[in-house]
Amino acid sequence: MDAFATQTKQDFLYEQIADDIAAMIKSGSFRLGDRIPSVRELSRKRGVSITTVMQAYRSLEDKGLIEARPQSGYYVRLRQLPGLPNPDPISHTTLNSADISVQDLVMKIYHDQMRTGMVQFGTALPDPNLLPTARLNRILASISRKPDFRHNVCGVVEGCDELRVQVAKHSYQYGCRLAPEDVLITSGCGEAISLALQATCKPGDTVAIESPTFFNLLQTLEAQGLRALEIPTHPVTGISVDALRFAIEHQSVQACLFITNFNNPLGSLMPNERKAEMVALLAEHEIPLIEDDINGELFFSGERPNVAKAYDKNGLVLLCSSFSKDISPSFRVGWIAPGRYLEEIKRLKLVSNIAPPILPQLAIAEFLASGGYDHHLRNIRKAYAKKTACMADAVLRYFPPGTHVSSPQGGFVLWVQMAETVDALEMYSQALKLGITIVPGQVFSPSAGYRNYIRLNTAPWSDQTAWAVQRLGMLAAQLEKANWKKPATSESISPYEQVISRR
Amino acid sequence: MDAFATQTKQDFLYEQIADDIAAMIKSGSFRLGDRIPSVRELSRKRGVSITTVMQAYRSLEDKGLIEARPQSGYYVRLRQLPGLPNPDPISHTTLNSADISVQDLVMKIYHDQMRTGMVQFGTALPDPNLLPTARLNRILASISRKPDFRHNVCGVVEGCDELRVQVAKHSYQYGCRLAPEDVLITSGCGEAISLALQATCKPGDTVAIESPTFFNLLQTLEAQGLRALEIPTHPVTGISVDALRFAIEHQSVQACLFITNFNNPLGSLMPNERKAEMVALLAEHEIPLIEDDINGELFFSGERPNVAKAYDKNGLVLLCSSFSKDISPSFRVGWIAPGRYLEEIKRLKLVSNIAPPILPQLAIAEFLASGGYDHHLRNIRKAYAKKTACMADAVLRYFPPGTHVSSPQGGFVLWVQMAETVDALEMYSQALKLGITIVPGQVFSPSAGYRNYIRLNTAPWSDQTAWAVQRLGMLAAQLEKANWKKPATSESISPYEQVISRR
Repeated sequence: MDAFATQTKQDFLYEQIADDIAAMIKSGSFRLGDRIPSVRELSRKRGVSITTVMQAYRSLEDKGLIEARPQSGYYVRLRQLPGLPNPDPISHTTLNSADISVQDLVMKIYHDQMRTGMVQFGTALPDPNLLPTARLNRILASISRKPDFRHNVCGVVEGCDELRVQVAKHSYQYGCRLAPEDVLITSGCGEAISLALQATCKPGDTVAIESPTFFNLLQTLEAQGLRALEIPTHPVTGISVDALRFAIEHQSVQACLFITNFNNPLGSLMPNERKAEMVALLAEHEIPLIEDDINGELFFSGERPNVAKAYDKNGLVLLCSSFSKDISPSFRVGWIAPGRYLEEIKRLKLVSNIAPPILPQLAIAEFLASGGYDHHLRNIRKAYAKKTACMADAVLRYFPPGTHVSSPQGGFVLWVQMAETVDALEMYSQALKLGITIVPGQVFSPSAGYRNYIRLNTAPWSDQTAWAVQRLGMLAAQLEKANWKKPATSESISPYEQVISRR
Repeated sequence: MDAFATQTKQDFLYEQIADDIAAMIKSGSFRLGDRIPSVRELSRKRGVSITTVMQAYRSLEDKGLIEARPQSGYYVRLRQLPGLPNPDPISHTTLNSADISVQDLVMKIYHDQMRTGMVQFGTALPDPNLLPTARLNRILASISRKPDFRHNVCGVVEGCDELRVQVAKHSYQYGCRLAPEDVLITSGCGEAISLALQATCKPGDTVAIESPTFFNLLQTLEAQGLRALEIPTHPVTGISVDALRFAIEHQSVQACLFITNFNNPLGSLMPNERKAEMVALLAEHEIPLIEDDINGELFFSGERPNVAKAYDKNGLVLLCSSFSKDISPSFRVGWIAPGRYLEEIKRLKLVSNIAPPILPQLAIAEFLASGGYDHHLRNIRKAYAKKTACMADAVLRYFPPGTHVSSPQGGFVLWVQMAETVDALEMYSQALKLGITIVPGQVFSPSAGYRNYIRLNTAPWSDQTAWAVQRLGMLAAQLEKANWKKPATSESISPYEQVISRR
């Protein structure tokens, strides 16, 4: 055997090994984070040299399929996600604010998501295994042993001092210096936003929102008779200040409602300096910003991003958040730091439901005060980063080629763009029959623009989850082909009765 | 000594004994429910015959100051209360609906009431000693020991099944046959009413209310941009159906908002047959009734009164209540049975704050399910009847002659009418300086009509309470004289910016 022939045979062997491993990754036999066979083991099994296996693994590394971890071996890594295309630039002709109609679909989706026995990719609920429930139970037991009547007297509208102090203490981590008296406790982040809109707008006013944005926010706008102005949102860096400037210079906008950190559904993160620029712009125009930071703690890497409120010198930013994603979704404890709107927010809270219940507040205050919150957050951040990557990987594996998936930098939802012929509402109905819930893209915009998108919550990873993603992928492929000839008509599928009115 | 002289001496003796006892009752040495000395004891101490003491006690009985209890002795009883005058009859010329303006005063009163170290006659809060706190603590401890994660997953918008079942079960007691699915759990009765108004009205609509009525209801109307139409309310029997018929035949009314059982502040009770008549009238006109039954369980004698909802055949009555008065003010657990408006209420609750917190619901459901609620209610009813009578007695003792006080048939607040020259707002400010909170009558009506009225919560009876009532009585006397020359000008003291617009 001459040198040339040996070379060719070696080439062939390493390529075959690389192809085999790649196929096993594609099929899901080896999954994200799995350790693949060691070089020595594979060399023995296949009867090839160490060098050949090394060559195969290096080619897999180059393709981004595996990564070497020092002293440990080779592991399956997340493929470079193709990401989402950039949004269309904003122009005068696209500036429409829309009335939003009552959305029976969203109520239907809500009820479907509450059914038991379903694979739940619908509601953006935290993984129950990543909540400090045992710890909360111990705190409750200790509160229930206290002889005083503290938790059974009516609280004040602002909420318990203990909790307001803890919220204020924590605020330096995202660039603020809140005082306890700047904070009012609410029934979740949802109530904080609802109160903020009531305090800053009146029926008929226009509120600038991200596109796409969380459908509950759109429902809240609708319930208050407000109009939504969609600002195109970059899938990685969020709202562009230039687009926002253009919008407010050409439209009458009474408030902005943005999720600056890890937008739902995109997972986008507005850079800190851009937040500062945006706050300055809005201050110039005296436009209040309602900032939803519910996902802010759930960043996947780097530092805790600041909030826009950190750059607010005029009390124009109403910062809203809650402990529903990281401590307890069922305690319904949220808060608002509403700047100059504090007194109005108090008044509105009082007439809406008097005061928040004391017990859940005391439990969360105790959890924060006794330390361990930061440690808990570090753990769940890692876990959510991993789960989200797993899910994105599965989507890319099982969905038809050409599918795009978001690369969220925090939170725990994915935004999936399919072929234009796929109607997400149709997919929603068919998935439901299979026992799987998803959220169709149409509800993330008052103009029903996202008809070939779906949002997926990253459920705890299991064989059932993998099966469900696989079935969704098959469904997407079927719908893609079945509708190849039908042109998309956004009117026919819009859950919102859209009323376009150029101003 | 001849027979005539003996007779006169005996007369003199019995009159003196009667006067002495009456004076001790007036001074508060003997208080409502106290046992006065036995006939035998007094006869011995005073060296008079049994017959003489008997004669004295009989004269005190005739005056309504004491009562005999068989096998037990003589006790101080509540004097026959003079009661409140009847309201002016409604006429076409008095039919004004009023815009309600932002009420800084109510916010100020709210904050004053939350100050510590005050004698609190302001907020209508239940007596902490009459709440089953120890029992709730045991239930919480037991929930916290359960290994499942039940209380830490996000609940559904309707609330926990366990609690809805208990509410429904209990409903036969007030004439209803609610099913669990008819009931939606809210954050207190306040939220139930706020949602009910949102579901039945739109800004600018007119809502018929009792006059006087609970100021929080007026604030809620205001926050939603609704107009209030005051219907005169009888201090004992509540809204007259004839007055209501006249009003809705001459005015456009979109909804009614009434406290049918034990109105706050009057304590009036609408007779059951009149509720039936009212429901039939409103059905004819397709006008929804929002019924606040928060005080319904706290009746002082007889049977649990029915709710108007018991007579509702058309789903037009939205029944609202809570457990804040009898189990826990701090748990903030209320509910609504909204009839035909159920789906709309669900939608509104969802966009307002997603779902109620689970833990307080589970605790109250367990309290109801484990029995003992009826027993607890029997105890606190007696206690509140006694406290309210004590307080009314003290007001009549210490306030200037001519003061009228309500005779509530349930609940725990008193409505006090003073001389026309007394300005309740002035009284409020001066009482605050003494460390006593009251609620001035002006905030119980959008037309600020009750300027010489105050509402008093029946605080736990103590020497401090007695002192505070005495000081209020002195204040009333001072203000009555000081303002003798100043004519009342309702404009100058109205906390509401009243906009009268005849329709």
